[in-house]
Amino acid sequence: MSSPSTDRATPGREAEEVARIGLLGRGTVGGAFADLVADSAAEIEAAAGRPLELAGVLRRSEGDFEQILESSEIVVELIGGIDPARDYVLRALRAGRHVVTANKQLVARHGEELFETARENGVQLRFEAAVAGVVPVIRVIQESLAATEITKVFGIVNGTTNFILSEMAGTGASYAEALGRAQELGYAEADPSDDVGGADAAAKMAILARLAFHTDVALGDVSYEGITEIQPDDLAYAKELGLSLKLLGVAELIGEGISVRVFPCFLYRGHPLAPVEGPFNAVMVEAPSITEITMSGPGAGGVETATAVLGDVVSILAGEAPVHRLRRELGRVSEVSSSFYLHLEVADRPGVLARIADVLGRNEISVQSVVQRGLGDDARLVMVIHECAERRFESALAEIGELDFLRSPPRAIRVIEEEFV
Amino acid sequence: MSSPSTDRATPGREAEEVARIGLLGRGTVGGAFADLVADSAAEIEAAAGRPLELAGVLRRSEGDFEQILESSEIVVELIGGIDPARDYVLRALRAGRHVVTANKQLVARHGEELFETARENGVQLRFEAAVAGVVPVIRVIQESLAATEITKVFGIVNGTTNFILSEMAGTGASYAEALGRAQELGYAEADPSDDVGGADAAAKMAILARLAFHTDVALGDVSYEGITEIQPDDLAYAKELGLSLKLLGVAELIGEGISVRVFPCFLYRGHPLAPVEGPFNAVMVEAPSITEITMSGPGAGGVETATAVLGDVVSILAGEAPVHRLRRELGRVSEVSSSFYLHLEVADRPGVLARIADVLGRNEISVQSVVQRGLGDDARLVMVIHECAERRFESALAEIGELDFLRSPPRAIRVIEEEFV
Repeated sequence: MSSPSTDRATPGREAEEVARIGLLGRGTVGGAFADLVADSAAEIEAAAGRPLELAGVLRRSEGDFEQILESSEIVVELIGGIDPARDYVLRALRAGRHVVTANKQLVARHGEELFETARENGVQLRFEAAVAGVVPVIRVIQESLAATEITKVFGIVNGTTNFILSEMAGTGASYAEALGRAQELGYAEADPSDDVGGADAAAKMAILARLAFHTDVALGDVSYEGITEIQPDDLAYAKELGLSLKLLGVAELIGEGISVRVFPCFLYRGHPLAPVEGPFNAVMVEAPSITEITMSGPGAGGVETATAVLGDVVSILAGEAPVHRLRRELGRVSEVSSSFYLHLEVADRPGVLARIADVLGRNEISVQSVVQRGLGDDARLVMVIHECAERRFESALAEIGELDFLRSPPRAIRVIEEEFV
Repeated sequence: MSSPSTDRATPGREAEEVARIGLLGRGTVGGAFADLVADSAAEIEAAAGRPLELAGVLRRSEGDFEQILESSEIVVELIGGIDPARDYVLRALRAGRHVVTANKQLVARHGEELFETARENGVQLRFEAAVAGVVPVIRVIQESLAATEITKVFGIVNGTTNFILSEMAGTGASYAEALGRAQELGYAEADPSDDVGGADAAAKMAILARLAFHTDVALGDVSYEGITEIQPDDLAYAKELGLSLKLLGVAELIGEGISVRVFPCFLYRGHPLAPVEGPFNAVMVEAPSITEITMSGPGAGGVETATAVLGDVVSILAGEAPVHRLRRELGRVSEVSSSFYLHLEVADRPGVLARIADVLGRNEISVQSVVQRGLGDDARLVMVIHECAERRFESALAEIGELDFLRSPPRAIRVIEEEFV
């Protein structure tokens, strides 16, 4: 890691022990970040090689930027918006401080100026949290695929609109009703226009396009549509046709040019982005040499976004790739629980199901669904069993295997039955 | 970046300009890596800050390890297996060379020895390609989530078995038939027992568990089952129940212990891993502070695996986080093609569909599907249009908007109709 090139008098310089972080902004994400720093102290020290400490917090009503800057090695900007965030970030970079920001508008509008300033001052500017929350798309594009000729980056980069579309598709709600629900749950702001109109997704796609294609992409280069015109009808038909509706951002290389757009789009079932529901984000990256990589996860949320910020902070402190080091001893657990699919071929006579149900009941195992099919004198029973201790299930299975009406050994396969959040 | 701490006489030391790579092994992945280094020279230099050159290639029949080691700054091990790969990697680390390997058996069986040797010698050991091919799960766990308390890592980490299960589910083939098909296509080896029996997935899960939980995990700690007992029946019933069958690896923290297992498992439709088909891999990481991250992509393939290796090499050379730099100018493309969903409310009278079809035909637009519904005197037409130039579609839409039998403005939404590979 290169230390910030400041004079000897600043605490950031002498802090070979404690890494001091200046935190700008203490809203939802800033508060979650401060909590994470406190709660994950041991994990952070193990990963970064040094303990972390907040040198100061700047809020609207308190704190002095110059003072925080002087006492920090890394500045974390979580104010949002352009002013005064841009000025603070530029001053921090010029003072030789690494900067981590979650500010998509700032990076989308003033990226070139920020990158240039960071390069000139030999410091890092990281911004994983600015696009798709905790989904590690910035790191994967900038590091894993740094030397790969990416041809397309696309996905769901706005959680508000994905929640609204999921809600409309799932409940038949109108756009207005679904928006209201998103606002109740905190997934949409009081003035949702940046999200539902597509501008937020456009800013994120401008950032992704710039990183993927190594070319300057201005906000004005991104054409966008939102979801305000979507009718419940459209979603009802989509269901019939096996389609799901998403607000997609697409940045692609076409010949010697690029196209960066945001628009609502139907996806066929089986498309990797089709199962992405609720406030989740997902991004796909395509290149001839990788085929495609898909990444998904929560696109927003205080602690999720703060985790992405912390990942950037730790990477700056760790400097080089972490060489794996054991941190603890852990036991081996053999008593685990699972749901099961159970396939039985049995003689087709009265009382068979009752006998099996009795074995399951005595082992405290409950059945989620049963399908029975006649096969001449025999019958086939296929059951899905609710989650239970595997040890109990094995014991029930052994008992069932002994039943005289069984035509072949029972077959059991685990089932993951929890629904996607 | 810290240069390897070798004496001044070694070429690795003086190579501040060209970064010299010693390549061990030149099978499918090794050959693809050598090609990538040649074909992506400009991208690599832009990303790494220095050009890359193969200092030497060690094959079974040619090349001298000592000589390659002397002339290399980074050693890339793509021989596979334990002997002589372990000896070479240890000697390279001890000589102060960074090492990149794709060798899951080596990392799973001798991880602690390798990590310790790398730490002692102040060099990096990277192995993204050892688990899930180009899916960046190692980097995300070790870097993005370095300070995050991960509670569970699970997923599909063997492409051979996922291909076989997809084939059985899709075509009704028996296990033996699907295995034969996998062998024909090069997705399964002549002796497939490591893959189909679960041992390959178990080695990968041991690596993931070690990195996620920071504790020593031996191969013997992983219990595993394979897919050789799966019957076509199971898959047929699964389909009825809306389930898909995957060979899952699961590593989870349970209280103060861990459980690491590999087993075939049904997933409900809507589960993020359910749509992962064919030779793809996918891994989910869970932690309270991130909810979950899902990553998927090709789990094998020469060029895909070589791309993961190259990503590690470039990260070593770039040392710190890349500060974004523009590399080129690209035009803006406005003529793009899309598929569309088209929703029309029309008067229900003869000739309406013909008039619409005529407009589409004249604009060289072909229809994939039509659903027509009566609504009293009116009818609703919902069409899906095959991919066409958006400009042509817009012009057709304008014409349709003028038709006298239209009851409300036409509504169009883009559709992504390509199927998941």
